[in-house]
Amino acid sequence: MRILVTSGGTSEKIDDVRAITNHSSGKLGKAIVESFAKDQVIVDLITTRLAVKPEGPTINLHYIETTADLEKKLKELMTTHSYDAVIHSMAVSDFTPESSVTLEDLESAIALQTDLPTTLLEIANKRTTKKISSDTDHLVIVLKKNPKIISLIKKLQPQTILVGFKLLVDVPMIELLNVAKESLEKNHADFILANDLTEIHGEKHHGYLINQQQKVKEAHTKTEIAELIKKEIMALEGTR
Amino acid sequence: MRILVTSGGTSEKIDDVRAITNHSSGKLGKAIVESFAKDQVIVDLITTRLAVKPEGPTINLHYIETTADLEKKLKELMTTHSYDAVIHSMAVSDFTPESSVTLEDLESAIALQTDLPTTLLEIANKRTTKKISSDTDHLVIVLKKNPKIISLIKKLQPQTILVGFKLLVDVPMIELLNVAKESLEKNHADFILANDLTEIHGEKHHGYLINQQQKVKEAHTKTEIAELIKKEIMALEGTR
Repeated sequence: MRILVTSGGTSEKIDDVRAITNHSSGKLGKAIVESFAKDQVIVDLITTRLAVKPEGPTINLHYIETTADLEKKLKELMTTHSYDAVIHSMAVSDFTPESSVTLEDLESAIALQTDLPTTLLEIANKRTTKKISSDTDHLVIVLKKNPKIISLIKKLQPQTILVGFKLLVDVPMIELLNVAKESLEKNHADFILANDLTEIHGEKHHGYLINQQQKVKEAHTKTEIAELIKKEIMALEGTR
Repeated sequence: MRILVTSGGTSEKIDDVRAITNHSSGKLGKAIVESFAKDQVIVDLITTRLAVKPEGPTINLHYIETTADLEKKLKELMTTHSYDAVIHSMAVSDFTPESSVTLEDLESAIALQTDLPTTLLEIANKRTTKKISSDTDHLVIVLKKNPKIISLIKKLQPQTILVGFKLLVDVPMIELLNVAKESLEKNHADFILANDLTEIHGEKHHGYLINQQQKVKEAHTKTEIAELIKKEIMALEGTR
């Protein structure tokens, strides 16, 4: 058995010294990897330098930084190996910086009445310095949408068991489950682990695992979530 | 002798899961602290969880995350202890996120023809969700200027020896030295260590230390920079 896991959070460059980062310790991904690795499953883990790392003889680490790196690495691995399951727990930036301009730049761009993102990108590209000057009261960063990495997975390997993650912040349980269900359907996932940032405190980690039959199972710690995901993947694989 | 050092890079929250971070490993700060600590100097180090940490019996660590945290901690320490020198090597965010809106929000704000940053802040504050939705093609983050932390230091302790840092990216040497000189004068620093990101590779680290008499000394590694700063501080203190 061979699985692919992603963990940690991507980081998107604003300029040579600044980046937008997604917080993620990588602890849940570590727990998941270790849960499989103790059963001698071969694990490819795509993660970041800052995330905590699992260790074991069957674990292969692959480092990435940006969403674009993740896409490239995922495609490379998924066209080289066949995976029984892909567990995509990485916090991926939905957006990446496209242009950074001053408020004054924004105001001149508005006056031109052309397509704003395009004009701002032209202004930013004309700037010759590589680090944005701090001689302005307001800085404006325009971000463009990143491709949705999770939607690539079933396109690359329709037979793999896909576990996606949905993290929201301080929402009612019903909303959390509805958003998770939507993500499951849109991305052809087999499971979505839905969790709320306000219910994560160290090892305590409240999560709901929903499947395509809309059955919901609950777990209360990172270890419980890891074991639940493994159990459900094994059970689903057993029925195939 | 007691000194205050800052190292690492600040991180400014965009929302509950995203932040703008300034890259800085903290390695140069570590080298500086260790250079003083080996001479039994008491060092207060303000740093971040992600930065590499020096160790030693005379080193006190103080953790911060944002520029606002740094300001608070600096004021607290500098009103409690008297420092022979303050070495401010931390990469501090010049800007902090004020509002995050969609491109559609920006367009409606522009139509109102009111003060743009204020209107965008109002729009952002009206939003009820704590994590920005990804259902938009472009996201716009407006950042406002942070207070300049370095300018506080001589106000709090006019007698301390202040070493500031100036990091630019891929600029000619003369420009680098001119910008450093400007910073030295504006912030009443005794020394500025000027360096260029393109000349930093692991332990190799090219830096120029300029003083109030506009004398420039050069160093080529982190250890050399640390030793140079210590030597110059000790020499200046000796003349007082």
